[in-house]
Amino acid sequence: MKKLINDPADVVSEALLGMAAAHPELRIDHENKIVYRADAPVQGKVALVSGGGSGHEPLHGGFVGPGMLDAACAGEVFTSPVPDQVMAATRGVDGGAGVLHIVKNYTGDVMNFEMAAELAAAETGVEVEAVITDDDVAVQDSLYTAGRRGVGITVAVEKIAGAAADEGRDLAGVAEVARRVNANGRSMGMALTSCIVPAAGHPTFDLPDDQIEIGIGIHGEPGRRRVPAAPAREVAEMLVEPILADLDFTGGDGVLAFVNGMGGTPLLELYLMYNEVAAILAKSGVTVARSLVGPYITSLEMAGCSVTLLKLDDELLRLWDAPVRTPGMRWGV
Amino acid sequence: MKKLINDPADVVSEALLGMAAAHPELRIDHENKIVYRADAPVQGKVALVSGGGSGHEPLHGGFVGPGMLDAACAGEVFTSPVPDQVMAATRGVDGGAGVLHIVKNYTGDVMNFEMAAELAAAETGVEVEAVITDDDVAVQDSLYTAGRRGVGITVAVEKIAGAAADEGRDLAGVAEVARRVNANGRSMGMALTSCIVPAAGHPTFDLPDDQIEIGIGIHGEPGRRRVPAAPAREVAEMLVEPILADLDFTGGDGVLAFVNGMGGTPLLELYLMYNEVAAILAKSGVTVARSLVGPYITSLEMAGCSVTLLKLDDELLRLWDAPVRTPGMRWGV
Repeated sequence: MKKLINDPADVVSEALLGMAAAHPELRIDHENKIVYRADAPVQGKVALVSGGGSGHEPLHGGFVGPGMLDAACAGEVFTSPVPDQVMAATRGVDGGAGVLHIVKNYTGDVMNFEMAAELAAAETGVEVEAVITDDDVAVQDSLYTAGRRGVGITVAVEKIAGAAADEGRDLAGVAEVARRVNANGRSMGMALTSCIVPAAGHPTFDLPDDQIEIGIGIHGEPGRRRVPAAPAREVAEMLVEPILADLDFTGGDGVLAFVNGMGGTPLLELYLMYNEVAAILAKSGVTVARSLVGPYITSLEMAGCSVTLLKLDDELLRLWDAPVRTPGMRWGV
Repeated sequence: MKKLINDPADVVSEALLGMAAAHPELRIDHENKIVYRADAPVQGKVALVSGGGSGHEPLHGGFVGPGMLDAACAGEVFTSPVPDQVMAATRGVDGGAGVLHIVKNYTGDVMNFEMAAELAAAETGVEVEAVITDDDVAVQDSLYTAGRRGVGITVAVEKIAGAAADEGRDLAGVAEVARRVNANGRSMGMALTSCIVPAAGHPTFDLPDDQIEIGIGIHGEPGRRRVPAAPAREVAEMLVEPILADLDFTGGDGVLAFVNGMGGTPLLELYLMYNEVAAILAKSGVTVARSLVGPYITSLEMAGCSVTLLKLDDELLRLWDAPVRTPGMRWGV
C-alpha cells in the first residue's frame, strides 16, 4: 500500500488539521472531529448536520458552509460517526429553529444519528428531524444496509435543503424538501478497481484486470454483478437503464444529471461518461436541466463512477441554483 | 488497462462532447478541439489562450470562462496541440486588444504556439504575446523540455492574468503580470503510481510497490530520484525544501500554497499533505495568505501530488481573489 499518509490511525485527524489550515471560513473541533461553518450557530435558521465515514471527500466536510451544511461529523474511514460526536454537532449548530440530520442509509449511521437526536433532545430540548437518503437502485439490502444504500443523491439533498434553510423555512419545511429530493433521486455506481482502507492496508476486494463491478457501493460493498470490462457506452447503459426503470424521469422540469467520480478516475473519463449518459437520456425522452460532473462522493482511490438522476420541479431547480459557498461546491457568491 | 472509454482514439473528442453537453456556458469547436467561452470574442479585452496535451483536466479546458481563459486548445493525451488549432483559437478570441498565449514549457508546445502566433499575426494582424511557464524545480532539462518544466504555476498564471485582462489592462500589462506570477512561483511533484495513456494501454513507467518517484513530471517523465515509500511528512519535506531553496518566500504579502492532486490521490490525503506543507512553511517563516487544495493539473489517474508556492504582492493577491467563473475554478460570482 502506498499512500500520502503518516500513521494509518491518524489519517482522519491529520486531514482535518489540513482542512482547518486551508479553510479559515470553517471552524473545526478536532477532538470531536466536527467541521463547522465558522459562524455557527446561525440564529433563527434551521441547521443542517450530516456526516458519516471518512473517505468520501468532499462529502461531507467539504460541503459545510453558507447554503449547505452547518456541520459535518467525520467518522473514521468508512466508519459511522459516534452518537456523542453527532450530539455535539447538533448542539453546536442549533440556532433555535431546530436541526435537520441528513443521514445516508447505512445501519450504523442511522442508529448513531438517531441516538444522538434523542440525547440532544433530552439534554437541551433541541428539535431534530432526520432525513435518510436511500437512492441506490443497485441492491435492495447490502453488507451495511437494510434497504437501499444512500449515495449520490446525498449531495443534492445537502445542497437543496441548505438553500431551503437559507430561505428561512421551518424545520418541517426543510425536511419536506430534503425528503422530496431523496424520493425523486436514483443512483447507480460501478468500479474498475478497489479502494484501499488505510487501516487495512490492502484492497477491500479483488477485481480481475478484465472485469468491472456494476452496482458497487461507496465502501466497496458488492454490487449486482461482475461483467467483463466494457466500453463506456455500455457501462453507461448498465448504470442508466436500472435508474430509468425505477422511476419515470420524463416530463416535469427536467433532471439534474450527475456523473460522479469514485476518486481514482480522471475527469477526462468522467466527461466522456457524461457524454454517453446524456445520449441515453436524450434517446429516452429525459430532459437535462442541470448537470454536475466530478468527484463529489468518492470511495478513496477507487476508480469508477456513479450516475445520479434527480427529477426537478421549479422549486427544486431554484433551490439547486441558489448561492452556495463551501470548499467542495461553490457558486453565486 | 481498464478505463471508462470507448475507442482510445476517440477519448479527447468524446470528452469534449461531454463537456459541451455539461457546460452550456462554453462553446466547443469539436473539429479543432477548442473550448471557448460562449461569448468570445469579448470586444476590447485582452484575450487569453492556453492549451496543451489532454490528460491534465481540469487544466486547460476547465479553466475557460469569465476571469480566466477565453479559449483552450486540447491536444491528444499528453501531446501538444497543433499550430492550426492554436491559430484558430487565437483568431476566434481576438477582441481587438491582442491575445496572450499561456504555454507550459515543453518543446512541442512552445514551438507550436510560436508558429501559431506568427501565422495569426501574418494572416490577420492580431497582436500576440506569449508567456512560458517553467516553475518545476525538480529538473533543469527533461524528456520533453529544454529548461524547467511548466506545471502547477500555470493554474495561477491563468487565474491572475485572466483577472488582469478583466480589469482592462493592455496586452503588455497582462503579459507582465503573467510573467511575474511565473517568476514568483516554484513547484515540485511526486508520484506513487504511474498513469496509463489510453492509446498506449499500459503504464507509462514502472514504479515498484515500495518506491515513490520524487520530482516527477506531469506526463510521467522521470524526476530527480526514486526513494522508498515514506510518510507524508517526509514526502512534504522532499517537495517543499527544494522549492524554498530556490526562491526566498519569506516576507512580502505571503504566499499562495497550492497542494495539487495528480489525479488518483484521494482528497483526504491531499488535505493531510496540506497539513504537512503548512507546518513546514510555518517553521520556515513563510506566511500563507491563500491556499488551494485539490486536483487542478493532473496526470490522468496517476497517484501523487505536487506543491506549488507563489509569492504574492498586494496586486497579485487582489487579482487572485477577483471573481472567476469556470467549470474548474469558481468564486465571487
